[in-house]
Amino acid sequence: MTQPRAVKALLFDVFGTVVDWRSSVAVELQSALAPRGHQLDWEAMADDWRGRYQPAMQAIRSGARGYTILDVLHRENLDATLRAFGVTGLSEAELIELNEAWHRLRPWPDCVPGLGRLKRDFILGTLSNGNIALMVNLARFGSLPWDVILGAEITRSYKPSEATYLGSAAALGLAPGDCMMVAAHNEDLRAAQRLGMATAFVCRPTEHGPGQEVDLAPDGDWDYAAHSMQELADLLARA
Amino acid sequence: MTQPRAVKALLFDVFGTVVDWRSSVAVELQSALAPRGHQLDWEAMADDWRGRYQPAMQAIRSGARGYTILDVLHRENLDATLRAFGVTGLSEAELIELNEAWHRLRPWPDCVPGLGRLKRDFILGTLSNGNIALMVNLARFGSLPWDVILGAEITRSYKPSEATYLGSAAALGLAPGDCMMVAAHNEDLRAAQRLGMATAFVCRPTEHGPGQEVDLAPDGDWDYAAHSMQELADLLARA
Repeated sequence: MTQPRAVKALLFDVFGTVVDWRSSVAVELQSALAPRGHQLDWEAMADDWRGRYQPAMQAIRSGARGYTILDVLHRENLDATLRAFGVTGLSEAELIELNEAWHRLRPWPDCVPGLGRLKRDFILGTLSNGNIALMVNLARFGSLPWDVILGAEITRSYKPSEATYLGSAAALGLAPGDCMMVAAHNEDLRAAQRLGMATAFVCRPTEHGPGQEVDLAPDGDWDYAAHSMQELADLLARA
Repeated sequence: MTQPRAVKALLFDVFGTVVDWRSSVAVELQSALAPRGHQLDWEAMADDWRGRYQPAMQAIRSGARGYTILDVLHRENLDATLRAFGVTGLSEAELIELNEAWHRLRPWPDCVPGLGRLKRDFILGTLSNGNIALMVNLARFGSLPWDVILGAEITRSYKPSEATYLGSAAALGLAPGDCMMVAAHNEDLRAAQRLGMATAFVCRPTEHGPGQEVDLAPDGDWDYAAHSMQELADLLARA
């Protein structure tokens, strides 16, 4: 760990770091499909849907495809996942509703109280690949007290592209060094640190379920490491 | 008044509608300049500074100048106002600090309680010409409970350009008709209504001081008209 640094804004990864996407999406899939007679491995189906996320963004990062919001990528990926699991016959309205499962992800239990404490001292922004509507609906669903929605859509780029981080800091009128990236993913922090941002790792050992093998511990020289937003608030209060 | 319409998001003009820019800026000018021996008409100076706002944006609306955030326009206008009032000798740091007077504008007293009530039923967003950093700092200064900062910077345009309204609705994944523009300015509502948005006029008869002659009453077929955010919350609760 480096010495603590004074920052003005905390910028958060959201999927996995703030919200438990896997169990939430599994429940949404079950709610939508079980009444139609499907008996599927809902967690595996959530993983399959999420597994198509990075490849879909890669086409945009590489320039092969123009910037397209995550709601649209999620829908394309949902169609593929349903095909892969042999699910057919949903109406367009049902597909739209199911795709918005990503707007109804439960926060990890420490987030609402922890973010409330952090908000007293820092600007809190999202620096997520989610689009604005998704982030707004997620915040209202989970009572997440963001000051501002930044990240992919306002920069028309996807992490870990430099533009996503630099454009988010610039939108706050801040230098990267005035901002701290908060994420459960070491790669996200590595990209942020390379650009001069401070970094905080928040461990989410069950983001990918009970057998998770990645991001179980900080593996970089991050400024802070915690197991919850409340612990992060404790650490920053002492800094 | 037309019949009430169901909307999902309320999008707010901010300067004048939510915050009392004139008295706030006058106090900031006095705080910065009176200790240096200046005795000036602080309200007139605030009016002069604000008076340069529309012409500055017009250069951008017309395409003569590329999109430039309002903080930068405010600074150019401050320099001109200081020259006009014969004020010299401020350091760069003092000028930056004074320019951020626009980040410290007091909300009208009904806004915090009224917006709190409205937030229960509607997405609350800013649809202001202020840039993101300005809007975020203003919200934190005045405890304004926005769900999202929309408007000029995310659309790289200035009201009443169509792009500012349409791009803000689109960022929420909403049609214009799902959004209601809330403003103390009839012209702002006229532009929004032309694009299909619902409209609410909130009267601010002292925005421009005791001798105000404009926007003293609704002068269009707006869906709602109120004298405070609390009255607007009452009207929408009954709709």
